Amino acid sequence: MFDDTTYTQSHEIALATDLYQLTMGASYHALGMQQTATFSLFVRRLPKNRAYLVVAGVNRALERLRDLRFDAGAIDYLRSTGQVRDDFLDILHELRFEGDVWAVPEGRVVFGGEPIVEVTAPMIQAQLAETMLINTLHFSTAVASKAARCVAAAPGKQLIEFGLRRTASIDAAVEVARVSYLTGFAATSNLLAGERYGIPVAGTVAHSFIQAFPNETDAFRAFARTFPGPVTLLIDTYDPIQGTRHAAAVARELASEGCELGAIRIDSGDLVAVSRAARQILDAAGLTETKIIASGGLDEIDLMELTGANVPVDGYGIGTQLGSVVDAPTLDMVYKLVEFDGRPALKLSSGKQTLVGPKQVWRGTGADGRFTRDIIAARDEPSPGNTWQPLLELALTDGTIHADLSLEQARARHRAELALLPLDILRLGGKHASYPVEISATLSARQQAAVDAVRLREGLR
Amino acid sequence: MFDDTTYTQSHEIALATDLYQLTMGASYHALGMQQTATFSLFVRRLPKNRAYLVVAGVNRALERLRDLRFDAGAIDYLRSTGQVRDDFLDILHELRFEGDVWAVPEGRVVFGGEPIVEVTAPMIQAQLAETMLINTLHFSTAVASKAARCVAAAPGKQLIEFGLRRTASIDAAVEVARVSYLTGFAATSNLLAGERYGIPVAGTVAHSFIQAFPNETDAFRAFARTFPGPVTLLIDTYDPIQGTRHAAAVARELASEGCELGAIRIDSGDLVAVSRAARQILDAAGLTETKIIASGGLDEIDLMELTGANVPVDGYGIGTQLGSVVDAPTLDMVYKLVEFDGRPALKLSSGKQTLVGPKQVWRGTGADGRFTRDIIAARDEPSPGNTWQPLLELALTDGTIHADLSLEQARARHRAELALLPLDILRLGGKHASYPVEISATLSARQQAAVDAVRLREGLR
Repeated sequence: MFDDTTYTQSHEIALATDLYQLTMGASYHALGMQQTATFSLFVRRLPKNRAYLVVAGVNRALERLRDLRFDAGAIDYLRSTGQVRDDFLDILHELRFEGDVWAVPEGRVVFGGEPIVEVTAPMIQAQLAETMLINTLHFSTAVASKAARCVAAAPGKQLIEFGLRRTASIDAAVEVARVSYLTGFAATSNLLAGERYGIPVAGTVAHSFIQAFPNETDAFRAFARTFPGPVTLLIDTYDPIQGTRHAAAVARELASEGCELGAIRIDSGDLVAVSRAARQILDAAGLTETKIIASGGLDEIDLMELTGANVPVDGYGIGTQLGSVVDAPTLDMVYKLVEFDGRPALKLSSGKQTLVGPKQVWRGTGADGRFTRDIIAARDEPSPGNTWQPLLELALTDGTIHADLSLEQARARHRAELALLPLDILRLGGKHASYPVEISATLSARQQAAVDAVRLREGLR
Repeated sequence: MFDDTTYTQSHEIALATDLYQLTMGASYHALGMQQTATFSLFVRRLPKNRAYLVVAGVNRALERLRDLRFDAGAIDYLRSTGQVRDDFLDILHELRFEGDVWAVPEGRVVFGGEPIVEVTAPMIQAQLAETMLINTLHFSTAVASKAARCVAAAPGKQLIEFGLRRTASIDAAVEVARVSYLTGFAATSNLLAGERYGIPVAGTVAHSFIQAFPNETDAFRAFARTFPGPVTLLIDTYDPIQGTRHAAAVARELASEGCELGAIRIDSGDLVAVSRAARQILDAAGLTETKIIASGGLDEIDLMELTGANVPVDGYGIGTQLGSVVDAPTLDMVYKLVEFDGRPALKLSSGKQTLVGPKQVWRGTGADGRFTRDIIAARDEPSPGNTWQPLLELALTDGTIHADLSLEQARARHRAELALLPLDILRLGGKHASYPVEISATLSARQQAAVDAVRLREGLR
């Protein structure tokens, strides 16, 4: 989102990259290096408090790759830096992404080291995709992975995404709403996300409204009378117990006017004690259908504890902790050259080895239908058997996207996938098991041969 | 940034809000509540590893407030939700922000509880600003505050912002580049930020380039010959010591062709040992002017340790840790009603009390010119004396921005401000002192009177 409307979207997507992608492209061009390269995008190791990742952002990445264009303004700017060769800039406006992309569909689960996207294209095109692909996939996958934990921590509860105000940008916040819905959230407070993706929107009143009236009861009465439909009242501006009593009294008083107290919301304090007391007050007033929503800096560990305490809460608002992925804000997501001109490629930088060549990930299924283990294999290997599913699918060829772009489909895919994962993988709170991921014998042998060849060539022991 | 170009920017800014801002607005409208409200935006408590915050994002927030418009598409969408009253939607397209905004200028330092922005406007307008203001200021201030720590940790070194790929969105990444520059970074790898703000751009080559050649020396030679100007070579693809030797050899070999080895970059491993060994190799080869750049997941604590070890590194690339503000990704930034229709307003929610009324923050100066302490006062109090500076300035009135929007001015303001802060506030690593922030006697008395009045009115002890 830019305040200067002379920026077009494709202009922004093209220039939202690191300078070195262009300086490398210019050198490849000058050297006539048009050979085919394959890059692999993956997360090296999972954060210590993640047992799995939920893939998200793939669809937008495919669209951006398909639509990549350098317009005259972008090229003029690059020329002004003096750091990109003119002979490359002269042809840059004709550059299009013409390669093949294999990708894991949105909503599927992946583990450390497993390729999420693999790109095969002429070197300049494949290299230029790097910054955009990581930028587009990293945040979406990090947020989806946390949102999925929230859903797992509060079975049967309605989760509402409240993160907009403390998320890094408007666009990032819309993406938080989208991927939260993908993983099973019921609604968002974010109107732009609601409009864009058809996600249900929720939210009624803030503390400031209550404060603007002579007293809490007057505020509740005024809001209930002017809100169209069942109202949610926020009860903790002054005192949550008394606030619940005020809300119940107003609900009874205005029932004859057709006002209905749909829910109360508790946004601070001891949620266990307050929700139990509030439930008693509401029930005693005959408001047994009135729901209780809790919010206030909650994360999945809070949800797990509240679920364990069996609190009478019907739904949760989840905001800040999700939108900034506070407990695991970054993933070690990288995009590495694995093959160039038919030769395997790798680096030996300490702790940063990469698996050579195009790959496939196979997910094995046991007799009960649940997933048992994954195998990372070379892409040209046959399937390990008919109980194995390939994770990577051909998603973009010749400028045409083959991936399914529907959010509802991704949501259904995610729900189905989670139902088949081993239960000990889904456990929260750091005591999860590690899902078995193996490397095929063929890929291991090719990897060792490539490492030996590089060491020999570079004179390293 | 949206892939659907039918979205205009003002459409996005208007709808990038929480539903409850509109449902409250609709109720205020239905109730005829047009009285003036004052809201205060501040960070309740600093994260435990922050001694100060650097204000950023104010200028864009002012622009968005000035330009706030609900277009026909936004109003149609709101109508479709069935949750916003029609009588409000009928007048919403005419709504403009007409209030006064007081703000702390970008680049200045603030502490916990100090107002950063105060808005005085008719209630509906002031309320509608909430989500946008926090969304615009929260991330910028969080990043600027971390970037300032990086600058403090590496005195005299060139810092380059590398965060684009792992920042939450393109727009967020451009803002990371902008506020890093504001706090003293020298350059960014982000071309879009370079174009938009005139920030110097930097970056030359990645590991993939090295891997695409038969061997490292061939890669260095090819890149040095095709890059316009002094080249930076990345030396750790296979082995950093041998890589440095290869770089030095290529530099000598190609000197006659006019190629100059501007720098080497080390992106992994033991930066202390490798940088020292690399410096020796370069110096022995007569390349005493070649600089050493280090990168690879660095944060300000790493920089502090490297500075302490007096490593021969000339510049650092700082990316992931900065762009996601990994050690303090969220601030407890809130926007609270403090006065309505001439009456003080406050909430009593546990741990969330707010200071009533419009305010000013005064910063005191000692005999040596350094800042000594701050006083949060009611805005109608006189200055504590002529050695005190007011932090809040009138920034927007009648749709006109008075704040200075220049990035270079903000950068200079920040540099000047930091030079006057007590040194023990600037200390890194968690052992910093706490800067004294007091509340004036007048404001304290008004606060107590307001608390007493609310408790009496609501029947609370």
